[in-house]
Amino acid sequence: MRKDGDAAVVEFTRRFDHLDVADMAALELPRAELDAALAGLPAEQRAALEAAAARVRSYHERQRIESWSYTEDDPAMQGTRLGQQVTPLDRVGLYVPGGRASYPSSVLMNAIPAKVAGVGELIMVVPTPRGEKNPLVLAAAAITGVDRVFTIGGAQAVAALAYGTATIPQVDKIVGPGNAYVASAKRRVFGTVGIDMVAGPSEVLIISDGSGNPDWVAMDLFAQAEHDDLAQSILLCTDEAFIGRVEASIAKLLPEMPRRDTIATSLKNRGALVRVRDLAEACEIANRIAPEHLELSLAEPGPWVEKIRHAGAIFIGHHSVEALGDYCAGPNHVLPTMRSARFSSPLGVYDFQKRTSLIEVSEVGAQTLGKVASILAHGEGLQAHARSAEMRLKG
Amino acid sequence: MRKDGDAAVVEFTRRFDHLDVADMAALELPRAELDAALAGLPAEQRAALEAAAARVRSYHERQRIESWSYTEDDPAMQGTRLGQQVTPLDRVGLYVPGGRASYPSSVLMNAIPAKVAGVGELIMVVPTPRGEKNPLVLAAAAITGVDRVFTIGGAQAVAALAYGTATIPQVDKIVGPGNAYVASAKRRVFGTVGIDMVAGPSEVLIISDGSGNPDWVAMDLFAQAEHDDLAQSILLCTDEAFIGRVEASIAKLLPEMPRRDTIATSLKNRGALVRVRDLAEACEIANRIAPEHLELSLAEPGPWVEKIRHAGAIFIGHHSVEALGDYCAGPNHVLPTMRSARFSSPLGVYDFQKRTSLIEVSEVGAQTLGKVASILAHGEGLQAHARSAEMRLKG
Repeated sequence: MRKDGDAAVVEFTRRFDHLDVADMAALELPRAELDAALAGLPAEQRAALEAAAARVRSYHERQRIESWSYTEDDPAMQGTRLGQQVTPLDRVGLYVPGGRASYPSSVLMNAIPAKVAGVGELIMVVPTPRGEKNPLVLAAAAITGVDRVFTIGGAQAVAALAYGTATIPQVDKIVGPGNAYVASAKRRVFGTVGIDMVAGPSEVLIISDGSGNPDWVAMDLFAQAEHDDLAQSILLCTDEAFIGRVEASIAKLLPEMPRRDTIATSLKNRGALVRVRDLAEACEIANRIAPEHLELSLAEPGPWVEKIRHAGAIFIGHHSVEALGDYCAGPNHVLPTMRSARFSSPLGVYDFQKRTSLIEVSEVGAQTLGKVASILAHGEGLQAHARSAEMRLKG
Repeated sequence: MRKDGDAAVVEFTRRFDHLDVADMAALELPRAELDAALAGLPAEQRAALEAAAARVRSYHERQRIESWSYTEDDPAMQGTRLGQQVTPLDRVGLYVPGGRASYPSSVLMNAIPAKVAGVGELIMVVPTPRGEKNPLVLAAAAITGVDRVFTIGGAQAVAALAYGTATIPQVDKIVGPGNAYVASAKRRVFGTVGIDMVAGPSEVLIISDGSGNPDWVAMDLFAQAEHDDLAQSILLCTDEAFIGRVEASIAKLLPEMPRRDTIATSLKNRGALVRVRDLAEACEIANRIAPEHLELSLAEPGPWVEKIRHAGAIFIGHHSVEALGDYCAGPNHVLPTMRSARFSSPLGVYDFQKRTSLIEVSEVGAQTLGKVASILAHGEGLQAHARSAEMRLKG
């Protein structure tokens, strides 16, 4: 793969995606095709996609981290300047799955923070098995200003982005969801390029004081459960009677749902309606679970927000349903799963920026610091470190 | 290991570290022993360690990220509040190698950002083969306020921190350098806990216009090369004559260095003195290499700082020698290696904090967003997502 480059990608695409082309150039979509997909959308869909993109952009613009530096005025350090220079990544690869899990919202959520960060070139890959393209995905690429699109997928797309080929430039980081092959390929190339987190099944935890509408709660559980059989939907509620009403709503609403089989399976395997003593206990459990999505379905949610130490996103109050966050509230829908909210964060602009330390020591400062560094370097047995500091000392 | 917990750790410590104890409790160092190590240091060493810690703390305090939120005043969204809640990690494990690479500066550079972030409990592990302890390392733990110290190491220490035992609490993230076994164990537990980057050999790139002192440049190359045989030390210089003077300095100074064998090997294998056309070309090469450490050994370095897009740290001007940054300038010495400065950053306070999205949609806002979400969810075939948004719409 690393050796054969373009030819290998073309061959794997023929074999796995049943897409037969003469060369790599035929696997690149021209910008005009993205624009045409956008122009071809029903007006309502186009407006919704553009409204969502605008809100996601506006939220993410507040996430940009900025360079900073300060000059020391202590006479012993006079004129010494320290700081951090923040720069965007040069080039990023965005993986978009084909088939059933090909989601335009995923293009928005990955491409917009990269663009807000100022990434120089954003390259999207999306498999199009047998040539089938998803116009919503292409339209989302047009709206977000993706720079190039290749219709390739699988581990071969990840490898092509990580190492580069004659046609596909090497990127510095690869983001976006994918199946097990894609996830495994991303893990393999990590180090050569950066990667985002490897996502597990999606999760929601709803904390309720019984003040809400049981139909709403039931449907919010369904919305999580419909993703796949492994999705996890849990309700923690202080009110036994309300739990009964949610159960009744589930029984009533489930038969209407087109994806009722998936919903039923995932609720059975990984769902739970749990009575808790009080909201303090609910928050404790939530912190232990560190859920991807947390809904505070409470009459007065305010005081409880700060009790939550670990969660990907907190949806506050009865009207803050997760589906709004998935599409258009503004914050990112790529969130830490499987308890990783204990140590990681939503995808953000900061994932497409990096920092470089700035160290500008004045001649005066070098006298002060040189002595300290020399003592510590000798303590560690690193004499050349010590000497290089001592050489800057004036007699 | 996961099953046997404490007993396994005690057994592996006996086998690999030749340290025979009755139980896990005997492998914990009491706080008094850390304080005694600090009190027992020569005054000059203690002062240097404390001065370094104070400067590192002061720099890192500027890195803390803060929570933010904003309320929308657009009538269509009235009262909707979005933001990000920033919280410290609950518990962090700090790996400190034993033996030759047991560096007190590494304790400072890992522990201080964790403490500045507000990490609840910081647990250090350090192997003490045959019971040999490094008093400087224990003193650094005392100064930085490490909460607990266990004298264990290797893959067993990483596993104990990642999964927890009866005695050792499970942590949320593991940081700190280690040998190949430790690095491999960290990769294995990644996902269960967070990890910092896996560091490669250390690197310096010096860009010179011939204005400096050739002895200084030679010694700066040595300081990198003395780490180990794989360390990489490169000089890019616009001045052929100056390169000759640096070569002469190398020949003159090398025999004086206690670690001359390591220095000679690494300079031979991975060192280079390269003539470049001009400083613009030097910066281009630097951006391709994305070095861990970059020294701008220039008469007027100012204008060139912003030309560097990829580097762990930039040392600006003749007095900003890397050794000062390694110990006491303030910025972190844990920096991205092996070209990963293209996509990653120095270790910082931000590595011990995480973000949670806050989404508080008002009833008014839910009317606006609900329609957009519904259209997009139907477009993705996720009907329960759509329904959960639609249920919040008022007739």
